[in-house]
Amino acid sequence: MAAAIALSGRGRGLSTPNPNVGCLIVRHDRIVGRGWTQKGGRPHAEAQALAQAMEQAHGATAYVTLEPCFHLSPRGPRCADLLARAGVARVVIALRDPDPRTDGQGAAWLRERGVTVEMGLMAEQAARAMAGFVLRQTRGRPHVTLKLGLSLDGRIALADGSSRWITGPDARAHAHVERARHDAIVVGGGTLRADAPGLDVRLAGLEDRSPRRVLLSRSDAPVGWERIGAPEEIAALNRVDHLLVEGGAETAAAFLRAGLVDRLLLYRAPILIGAGLAGIGDIGLADLAHAHGRWRLTDERRLGVDRLEVYEAVSSA
Amino acid sequence: MAAAIALSGRGRGLSTPNPNVGCLIVRHDRIVGRGWTQKGGRPHAEAQALAQAMEQAHGATAYVTLEPCFHLSPRGPRCADLLARAGVARVVIALRDPDPRTDGQGAAWLRERGVTVEMGLMAEQAARAMAGFVLRQTRGRPHVTLKLGLSLDGRIALADGSSRWITGPDARAHAHVERARHDAIVVGGGTLRADAPGLDVRLAGLEDRSPRRVLLSRSDAPVGWERIGAPEEIAALNRVDHLLVEGGAETAAAFLRAGLVDRLLLYRAPILIGAGLAGIGDIGLADLAHAHGRWRLTDERRLGVDRLEVYEAVSSA
Repeated sequence: MAAAIALSGRGRGLSTPNPNVGCLIVRHDRIVGRGWTQKGGRPHAEAQALAQAMEQAHGATAYVTLEPCFHLSPRGPRCADLLARAGVARVVIALRDPDPRTDGQGAAWLRERGVTVEMGLMAEQAARAMAGFVLRQTRGRPHVTLKLGLSLDGRIALADGSSRWITGPDARAHAHVERARHDAIVVGGGTLRADAPGLDVRLAGLEDRSPRRVLLSRSDAPVGWERIGAPEEIAALNRVDHLLVEGGAETAAAFLRAGLVDRLLLYRAPILIGAGLAGIGDIGLADLAHAHGRWRLTDERRLGVDRLEVYEAVSSA
Repeated sequence: MAAAIALSGRGRGLSTPNPNVGCLIVRHDRIVGRGWTQKGGRPHAEAQALAQAMEQAHGATAYVTLEPCFHLSPRGPRCADLLARAGVARVVIALRDPDPRTDGQGAAWLRERGVTVEMGLMAEQAARAMAGFVLRQTRGRPHVTLKLGLSLDGRIALADGSSRWITGPDARAHAHVERARHDAIVVGGGTLRADAPGLDVRLAGLEDRSPRRVLLSRSDAPVGWERIGAPEEIAALNRVDHLLVEGGAETAAAFLRAGLVDRLLLYRAPILIGAGLAGIGDIGLADLAHAHGRWRLTDERRLGVDRLEVYEAVSSA
C-alpha cells in the first residue's frame, strides 16, 4: 500500500477534478500493474494498472489508495466493475471514498461479485496523499499549504525587501517540486508588485507542471492570473484541490486568520537577519494560550545547509 | 575520554578562575578515580581523581580533558607532578593547555618521568566543553551563548510584550540547566524594566547554581547586579568564562553586531504568533550574502512539543 500511495503522488497537481489515486496489482508476489490517475482525471489509476496487468490480473490482489468508484460517468468506466470483470481476487483499499456517489458502494459491489475486500489499510497516509480531494468532499474547499523561507530568527527578507537568497539551491529545488504538486499558487498584491514572481516550476522535466496563478487582491489581476478577494473564495476555484500560499506576510496572515491553512512548509536557512521583514502579519492572536496545540510536526529533513520542517494543522484532521 | 568530558561538565559555571577539567583514572578496565574541577577552581580534577584512586593509581591510565598543569601556584599542587608521583603509567590528554605557563610543559614533565603521554584525543569536544576557558586564553574574553525562545515564525512575544509561555515546561527546565552552566547572565535595560527577571535557577538541587546577573545599560544597575556599558566590556568581567545573553532584542543585536556571540540556543515552540516582537534587533546586515556560512548546527533535540537547536559560530572555532 505504501507503494500505491507513492504512485498516487505522481498525479498530484494534475488529476483534478479527480482524486490522485494510486493502484498496484500484485500476483504471486510480483507487481503486474501500476497506475495513477492521469492528467485531467482519466484514465483512473485502476484502469491504467489493469491495462498493464492484462490477463495476469486474474486471481491477483489490487492495492488501491481510494475505494474504486462505483458511480456511472460519461468520462469512463466504473473501476469497481473493471476490477471485478478482470477477475481480481482481492482488493485492498486504504480510504473509503467520501464521495456520496460511491461511499462504500464500490466495496459492496466487489464483495457481491465474490471479490475479497479489505478497507482501512494506511488510511491516514492515503488521506494525507489525497488531502485536497478529501477536503473538497468534506468541507468543500481545497487543501492549503503555506510556504515560508525563513532565517533562524524568522525573517523572510531584509528591511529593504531583498530575499535573494535566504535558502540554498537544494531548498529552492524542493520548493519547486512542491509547486508542481499543487494545482494553484496564491500570492498577494504586495508580493506581485514587489517581486513580479513567475511562480513557475523551474526544474528540468517538470516545466509543464507549473500551477495556475491566483492573486489575493481587491484590484484586478494581470493577464494569466485568477483573482480572489478573500481567502474564503478559494472554495470557488475550479479544479483546485491543492493550493499553495507563497506570500507575502499579509496574505499568509489572511489565510491563517480565516483558519484556512492546513499545512506549513518551513524552509529554514542557518542565518540571522535581525531587523527585516517578518513572514506572517497580524493573525489576531490576543492570548498565547490560544496559539498552542494547533500544529504538529509531521516531516523534517535537511536540504543542503537548510532545513525543511512540515507542520500540519491539528484541527484539520 | 567521553566520560571525562562529561565529568568536566559538572564544574562548568562553578570552576572559575580555573578551567572546568574532567579526569578519569582507569586500571585493568575498571574506573578507580573520577574528578572534576571543584567550585572556585580547587581541588583540580586530577587531584580529586587521584585521591579516590589512592594506591590503585599505580600503573593506571589517566584520562584528562586538559593537559595537567605544570606551573606552580600558591593555591595547590602541580597536577603533572601529582600524576607522576602517584605512579600513573599513562596519561591521555584531550587538549593541550593554551595557558602559556603550561602549554606543553606538563606533558613534557610527565614524559621525562617515564609516563606515556598521548595528546589530542577528542580535542574538539574537550575544547567545546571548556569553551570559556579556551576563549579566555586565546582572545581574552568569555564564551557567549545567546538564548532565544521563539515561535515558528521567530517571535519572542506578542505585540503587547506577553511571552508567558511560548515554550513548555521541558524547554524551560532545559533553559534553567543552561543557566546553571554559565557564570553570568546578561540582559538589557528594557528586559529588566519590563520583566524584572530573577534569572535564577529554579530547579530542585540546583538553586545555589544561579549565575551572576549583568545589565547591559548606560544607566546604573540595581543592587545585586553588575553593569556593562557595551558588549566589549565582558572581557573585564572577573571570573566569568561562560556568559549567557537572555534578552531582549536590542541586547541580542548589540552582541551580534560586536561579533560576540559564539553559540545560539534556540528553543522553538510549534506555534505561530504573527505580529509580535522579534527576537533580534538591527544587526546591521546590508547584504544577505554576508549572512551565510556563519552558523553551524551542532545539536538538536525535542523537549516536549518544543525543539531545541544549538548553532555555533563557524568563525569562532
